[in-house]
Amino acid sequence: MIALPEIGMTITDIDTPALLVDLDLLRGNIRMMAEAYVDTEVRLRPHMKTHKCPQIAHLQLEAGAVGITCAKVSEAEVFALAGVADILIANQVTGAIKIDRLTDLAGGIRLAVAVDDRENVRALDKACREKDVRLDVLVEVNIGMNRCGVDPGEDTLRLVREVASCSHLDFKGFQAYEGHLVMIQDPAERQAKVEAAFAPLQETISLVEEAGFPVQTVSGGGTGTFDLAASSTPLTEVQVGSYVFMDQTYSSIRLEFAQSLTVLSTVVSRPVPGRLVTDAGLKAMTSEFGWPSLLDIDSASMDYLSEEHAVLTLENPEDVHLTGGDRVRFMPSHVCTTVNLHDRFYLHQNGRLVDIWDIAARGCTQ
Amino acid sequence: MIALPEIGMTITDIDTPALLVDLDLLRGNIRMMAEAYVDTEVRLRPHMKTHKCPQIAHLQLEAGAVGITCAKVSEAEVFALAGVADILIANQVTGAIKIDRLTDLAGGIRLAVAVDDRENVRALDKACREKDVRLDVLVEVNIGMNRCGVDPGEDTLRLVREVASCSHLDFKGFQAYEGHLVMIQDPAERQAKVEAAFAPLQETISLVEEAGFPVQTVSGGGTGTFDLAASSTPLTEVQVGSYVFMDQTYSSIRLEFAQSLTVLSTVVSRPVPGRLVTDAGLKAMTSEFGWPSLLDIDSASMDYLSEEHAVLTLENPEDVHLTGGDRVRFMPSHVCTTVNLHDRFYLHQNGRLVDIWDIAARGCTQ
Repeated sequence: MIALPEIGMTITDIDTPALLVDLDLLRGNIRMMAEAYVDTEVRLRPHMKTHKCPQIAHLQLEAGAVGITCAKVSEAEVFALAGVADILIANQVTGAIKIDRLTDLAGGIRLAVAVDDRENVRALDKACREKDVRLDVLVEVNIGMNRCGVDPGEDTLRLVREVASCSHLDFKGFQAYEGHLVMIQDPAERQAKVEAAFAPLQETISLVEEAGFPVQTVSGGGTGTFDLAASSTPLTEVQVGSYVFMDQTYSSIRLEFAQSLTVLSTVVSRPVPGRLVTDAGLKAMTSEFGWPSLLDIDSASMDYLSEEHAVLTLENPEDVHLTGGDRVRFMPSHVCTTVNLHDRFYLHQNGRLVDIWDIAARGCTQ
Repeated sequence: MIALPEIGMTITDIDTPALLVDLDLLRGNIRMMAEAYVDTEVRLRPHMKTHKCPQIAHLQLEAGAVGITCAKVSEAEVFALAGVADILIANQVTGAIKIDRLTDLAGGIRLAVAVDDRENVRALDKACREKDVRLDVLVEVNIGMNRCGVDPGEDTLRLVREVASCSHLDFKGFQAYEGHLVMIQDPAERQAKVEAAFAPLQETISLVEEAGFPVQTVSGGGTGTFDLAASSTPLTEVQVGSYVFMDQTYSSIRLEFAQSLTVLSTVVSRPVPGRLVTDAGLKAMTSEFGWPSLLDIDSASMDYLSEEHAVLTLENPEDVHLTGGDRVRFMPSHVCTTVNLHDRFYLHQNGRLVDIWDIAARGCTQ
């Protein structure tokens, strides 16, 4: 008989590796972000890329979010089936199969999508027309991240005209993400660069409105710049994601939010006093933003992660009494991709397991 | 109606991102590795960490493998349920829950586990005694990788005595992985270092056998060193994994095997002629061994992967006619962790989809 997790058990007794979420800290983060926009014109449309979990989306909606942001059609499908009725796919949807899935979904919920290409706009309109559905469209403008998006100014106006000429698409405004600026350490530099990045978009909004196309929505923003949206940008809604859990990277610049997510791991070996090996490797924690950090022990440093192992050096081995079977916890360096490696969250309060939530949109890359 | 994949369709028409496996190349790799040991004393016990897929394990067993290697108990559970009856867990299993799962499994199949700690050996024996099951045990010896394992020599003999004194454990031999050497580029240097690393183990085997403990099994090895096992090491079985699919990293040193796995991706944006953005990011391809490489186009270089995007620079944009919706393929830099991000393999022959196999042990980190 396998020992299954039981509600009420000590959280550090569950099998590992496991994602632990402190429910009170999670709720506190969700409340604090919602309160930040209460007296502003900015609406909250959290990005589900961090949690991938309908239960958490519903906590965000209950706290005042107007809808959610997704990256992919398959994510939007999961959240629509879980009762989220207003979704922005903040990226381009291309290719016949995905446009088919997108326009199926548009028949059931309020759905918006980002575009940056004329042929794509025409393909979306054609698919909507064939199914007699309507789709909200945001033109993505490149404000310096240099990933997708058209340039501000005349290029943008040209694509807006294209969208507005389509019988089954509704031009709503712009998608503009300052992803290249959200991690700037110094707050004053961050603010100055965000204002500079959004200035051409501000001019483009005037250009487009003067041409007769009202701009209702400007969507973008991240946890790193959440406090600048109302004061320093034309954003009307923010797509903040990481604030629900935080991680080592975001914790260095955003002290308002609590670290609500940790990775529980078990010591599998301590072959010599100065080396600790645990069972959470690259399949349990990602490394593209650096190594995760071991909580609980100050003097431990990560040597490396292999697929199934974290290998750590202990500076003061005589002070560390961990041995095989003992539990430790890590703070991820990049929480969004770390969550994508797991199938469920173990929710805890006061050290006890209180619920288990499926990461229903894990692996939804399509 | 979502366009579902249909057997017989053109493989590059399926939705993306998707893992494509060329069935003929896969079978060729499996056959070639099996043939490499036909006239040797070395047996093949492939590591499932690369494919995580029972169908592929059964192809390996049909080609002559004596069993498979797993890293985790949860992986062994998946493969046992899929009919694999001889499994080595080549790592330490610690903590009450996992030892409970391990010893449950030992009642149903031939199961071996690696150990490097006396308390762990006692805990395993106690659990086996309580369930009246037996477990084969390999003592892990550190041959220079400096992860888990006891040192060669007297430390090893001491732990062998401990295992041999247990009523329900059967000492079978050693686990020893030269993981720090499998990627050495120069074949002569690789061979010399492998021989040097295994020399202390060879001496330890003599020491242990002279003390009255027969060593039946010495398990280790990888795709990078598969050709050295019989000639340059005391290994009696090899745990090769990556050879089934290969990847960019292994392709640089092992030319015998074919690249059978690729990641199919769709162009989502070409905002300027020199930049191509596709839908396979960090959630579809891992980056710890470097960026994946775009096949099909020689002059493309990867700028970066974000969660849902590959962003590439095209050196000769005028020669590249790709646009939104078009398909491209990538070669992963690290195939094992890349496979762990996906739920299924799309098998193809002659450009057509011939089967879809679940990656049944994806996410099995426990």
